[in-house]
Amino acid sequence: VRYLEYFTGRRPVRVLADGLQSEHGAWFYHKRNRNVVVETTDDIPEHEDFRWMTLGQIAELLHLDNVVNMDARSVLACLPGGGEPYALHDDVELRSWISSEQARNVVHADRVPCSTVPGWTRGPWSIDHEERRHFSVIAVSVRAGNREVTRWTQPLFEPRERGVIAFLIRSFDGVPHVLAQARVEGGFLGAVELAPTVQALPGNYAGAAAGERPPFLDLVMSADPPPSPVARNPAPSGKARVLYSAVHAEEGGRFFNAESHYLVVETDVVEAPPGFRWVTVAQLSALVQHSHYLNVQARSLLACLNAMAARGGDGVLGLRP
Amino acid sequence: VRYLEYFTGRRPVRVLADGLQSEHGAWFYHKRNRNVVVETTDDIPEHEDFRWMTLGQIAELLHLDNVVNMDARSVLACLPGGGEPYALHDDVELRSWISSEQARNVVHADRVPCSTVPGWTRGPWSIDHEERRHFSVIAVSVRAGNREVTRWTQPLFEPRERGVIAFLIRSFDGVPHVLAQARVEGGFLGAVELAPTVQALPGNYAGAAAGERPPFLDLVMSADPPPSPVARNPAPSGKARVLYSAVHAEEGGRFFNAESHYLVVETDVVEAPPGFRWVTVAQLSALVQHSHYLNVQARSLLACLNAMAARGGDGVLGLRP
Repeated sequence: VRYLEYFTGRRPVRVLADGLQSEHGAWFYHKRNRNVVVETTDDIPEHEDFRWMTLGQIAELLHLDNVVNMDARSVLACLPGGGEPYALHDDVELRSWISSEQARNVVHADRVPCSTVPGWTRGPWSIDHEERRHFSVIAVSVRAGNREVTRWTQPLFEPRERGVIAFLIRSFDGVPHVLAQARVEGGFLGAVELAPTVQALPGNYAGAAAGERPPFLDLVMSADPPPSPVARNPAPSGKARVLYSAVHAEEGGRFFNAESHYLVVETDVVEAPPGFRWVTVAQLSALVQHSHYLNVQARSLLACLNAMAARGGDGVLGLRP
Repeated sequence: VRYLEYFTGRRPVRVLADGLQSEHGAWFYHKRNRNVVVETTDDIPEHEDFRWMTLGQIAELLHLDNVVNMDARSVLACLPGGGEPYALHDDVELRSWISSEQARNVVHADRVPCSTVPGWTRGPWSIDHEERRHFSVIAVSVRAGNREVTRWTQPLFEPRERGVIAFLIRSFDGVPHVLAQARVEGGFLGAVELAPTVQALPGNYAGAAAGERPPFLDLVMSADPPPSPVARNPAPSGKARVLYSAVHAEEGGRFFNAESHYLVVETDVVEAPPGFRWVTVAQLSALVQHSHYLNVQARSLLACLNAMAARGGDGVLGLRP
């Protein structure tokens, strides 16, 4: 693996971030990857598959669909952030709430034989849900040109449709806060991690009563389009407005056609329902320095929030003061 | 449970510390408890089984054998600590090292039937190791006077002998550092947590060659007795000297006759072997604000280190400057 020596201690570097982070707790059992950022002053040649970029350039690319991959987004989210003078809940309160959610949600996950899982069927090409919900596990044959092994077969995980992943955002005392969710996923090592406000495949809830749909899914899906770059007036009261919108792929080595619509949506909602808390972007950046606080979708959106801030100057683009 | 309302959000309090912490990863599978400290200004009456004490009084009691129980020691360790101006490894380096140890030590623990575990036998009263090492699981009948249920039976976990739990301590640039171990225990949720320098039942290593005994066990067990309170001269070069020594019980609700000899031993050792790092007491206090960084033995010794500091003034008692 190219450049690996900079991450294994074989070359002198300054570590900026280094933690073990979860991935897709609803899809993987206890999967975690080390996310590392190191600073080097070596003169490192660019291999033809690699380019040096500024963080500002990556911030611009993060506003485009399907350019920055999931692992890059996750690692970018782990860069240390700045502090903010105010948060609705201070850091100790925030950790205490996370602990209470972890203590309240006791999860026992044990692996069981595939044949004993109700609602799923095994066909010649795939394992599928009987109602065509959630995802399939499919068998694929891969041919690739730029790898030493140019052909192989493997199972891949195919979600049934494009996901919706969104943070609601609003200011408290002039400081932007996002509405984080304490989310239980069966594959998490610690039962609960912080997730975006909305994280759903909408089709799973087609025809469901309003009370059974994920909180804020409808608000996010009916939000107004982004404001023009010129007129940065706030959204009308009672409405939600899209401040960031891009389609990003989930990891391509394990997933097939796994895309999600990532959104940051301005709102004047104030009340955080049970299982949700308003947190600042700086608090998310501080938590992600440690393992297992932010799920992979929250880390992706944190990278997007930072990209918005890079483009918008000091604050988040268009957010009402 | 008395006073529980102060920890469940039913009474207004200020939370000072709140995290889920592991217990005895070599003895328990994935056990974790919430450790919480809250500040209240309520006028709380003392039940006859409870007394208000100053932290200074508890620090004094921590110098006595078998007075402060394990849960109290663990919770006391979670109190926020002060900062220190210097550490041999800064916080990012320290977390990076912990991540590298967690990535290096992949542990798969699955529960299996008792009858399939080699080396252990089941008798009418207990489950024991064939060579009488490690521990037994025993059946007991309990009678108690101050509980509503005054008689019950339960299994208890009985270690084979008294444990030795010790931190080596020495100053770097005038700041005391302890030698922490990245320790794998089968019951940990995350494979690795920080542990004291030495954590062992010495009898398990009787007759073992020097290279197979736990690092620093012999150094700790042959350390000189504490200096007199008057003459605080440093230990002679090449020697180790006991600065703190007390016998404390492990938790009494699950363990039977489970005592450990807790030690803080001054040394002039400099080199940290693989799997060990010198860390400051302030760094331990910062890490324990989060879940699953310090194992229960390290938390107990952290409470003892704080008790030494409370007694000794600004620094750790007797430590060479």
